[in-house]
Amino acid sequence: MTAARKIGQQSVKFSNPPVISGWAAIVGPKEGQGPWAKDFDKILDDYLYGQSSWEKAENIILQETVQTAVAKAGLDTTEAELLLAGDLLNQIISANYAARELAIPFLGLYGACSTMAESLLLAAMMIDAGFFERVVAATCSHHYTAERQYRAPVEQGVQPSPSSQWTATASGAILVQPGGSGPRITCATIGKVVDMGVTDSANMGAAMAPAAGSTIKAHFEDTGRATDYYDLVVTGDLGAVGMNLASQSFIQQGLVPPPAYSDCGVLLYDGLPDIKAGASGCGCSAAMLCGPLLKKMSRGEINRLLFVATGALMSPTSTFQGESIPGIAHALAIENI
Amino acid sequence: MTAARKIGQQSVKFSNPPVISGWAAIVGPKEGQGPWAKDFDKILDDYLYGQSSWEKAENIILQETVQTAVAKAGLDTTEAELLLAGDLLNQIISANYAARELAIPFLGLYGACSTMAESLLLAAMMIDAGFFERVVAATCSHHYTAERQYRAPVEQGVQPSPSSQWTATASGAILVQPGGSGPRITCATIGKVVDMGVTDSANMGAAMAPAAGSTIKAHFEDTGRATDYYDLVVTGDLGAVGMNLASQSFIQQGLVPPPAYSDCGVLLYDGLPDIKAGASGCGCSAAMLCGPLLKKMSRGEINRLLFVATGALMSPTSTFQGESIPGIAHALAIENI
Repeated sequence: MTAARKIGQQSVKFSNPPVISGWAAIVGPKEGQGPWAKDFDKILDDYLYGQSSWEKAENIILQETVQTAVAKAGLDTTEAELLLAGDLLNQIISANYAARELAIPFLGLYGACSTMAESLLLAAMMIDAGFFERVVAATCSHHYTAERQYRAPVEQGVQPSPSSQWTATASGAILVQPGGSGPRITCATIGKVVDMGVTDSANMGAAMAPAAGSTIKAHFEDTGRATDYYDLVVTGDLGAVGMNLASQSFIQQGLVPPPAYSDCGVLLYDGLPDIKAGASGCGCSAAMLCGPLLKKMSRGEINRLLFVATGALMSPTSTFQGESIPGIAHALAIENI
Repeated sequence: MTAARKIGQQSVKFSNPPVISGWAAIVGPKEGQGPWAKDFDKILDDYLYGQSSWEKAENIILQETVQTAVAKAGLDTTEAELLLAGDLLNQIISANYAARELAIPFLGLYGACSTMAESLLLAAMMIDAGFFERVVAATCSHHYTAERQYRAPVEQGVQPSPSSQWTATASGAILVQPGGSGPRITCATIGKVVDMGVTDSANMGAAMAPAAGSTIKAHFEDTGRATDYYDLVVTGDLGAVGMNLASQSFIQQGLVPPPAYSDCGVLLYDGLPDIKAGASGCGCSAAMLCGPLLKKMSRGEINRLLFVATGALMSPTSTFQGESIPGIAHALAIENI
């Protein structure tokens, strides 16, 4: 039997930290207007991308992102051994249809906007354990498919509230391998579902912030690392309201606040007008990681990153039935070592 | 680095085959009328189970099943380190809310009716690799929550077609540990998404059968085992139409048909009137595995089982947009060794 790889209550450490050998991010027109345009692999001109529906466009975007990430590692998707992916749509149709077209063995995930962390930590476990050598972790979201499923068709022109986040049209994919060059995943913390009773689907950040706080606290407790260990702790996608609540929760939980803390939902549209509380969607934290953040790591501008993707487990059905919106967050330590 | 655990194209073998140390199945009233009543841990008297909605009942059933499986291994759920679960409902609300109440670190999955195999193979990987020592794999379905989401509210009284399968009200949970007594998971085969163009949501078996055939063929090729190696090869939940198509696909693919082959969708309601093509739903194969099949293994009536859970990746949205229904299947070899 292998040596125990679990540390503390909710974390695992990797014996041979898996390498992020290829990564890619594709974003929509609005995301391309933000400050990170040059860090994405492609910026779409429109939301249909030549397809007959936004859902089909989302599926094509995810496929292309996977292909690009694998190609950037010098491989072809036929060489990928496993795809771990999910998205926001019912029955994760974007991931399912992408997996059908790519013809890679596939495990579907649902973690709402935490999916980039969920898929990446599973990929890292499988690579570290020697089950596979080339695993792809991926996710995506599309503003117009998500809004009509979760809230209201955009054609209705419902006014956003100040706490509203804009669901990003964006996708990210990462190829994980046991060796090669690239940042390495050194450990991961798996979150619990946390629910503080938020029922407002226009305030996702507040629903997710307690989960982010819980997972980040568990991460530092489990690893024994100080909160200034990381050059950047980044949550995603809490937005301005949620990031503020998460910062408060660090203090409430008795955690020394990480000196460099930000949020993908705040960063993605930074400086753009009319954005309310920021960005959300699986693709938000995925594209921030697979665009600007990993680029900064490859340039040595960040050497130790704690990536904490957050998901609001919101369901129109359970909301109608009076249930509150639980949140979840998973954390990955990504380091240049 | 650990020795390679991948075999062939789509399979993994376990170095220290993980043990199924506890398992439980809870089923609805209809499932309790079938031939396996004495093999389930609980049979519900009604579909609401004291709750105000079928969705809430489904969540409670899943929680109880997890608690029962863990208790049967002599442990408490506070000792479980990780829950891997999913269900048929949008945003997998049954699993999310169960994870919230159980307060176990959680990774959400979406594999439609293949979820019992998906969760169990991930649990086995993590246990074998030494990341954890007590992982729960679980899934569930509820007839009335699934029908109103996927097809039509049952109050409409839509007549079932001959190929229709009855979505089971059922759940299954398994505790996986590195040692102890119980059947062991020796290897697993991860499926690809296969789509033969079926568009009829009343013929799920036909949508899933090619995926079952593809995964079973890959399993025997990857492992080098003969098709008579297993005392039973069981798919789930193809039903009568799909099981017939899967049997044909073995021959079409040049595979010697497994001499002992059956399907959970055919078995669950065996002999009951008015069932059309059999059972479906995540809970169908989960309850058959976590009830009669594992009981037969514990009595030595089956010593080598190939469990192949099948999922129809059906989405009302993509069906409206003219897409066909892809299928997926994952296989686990469970053996008394």
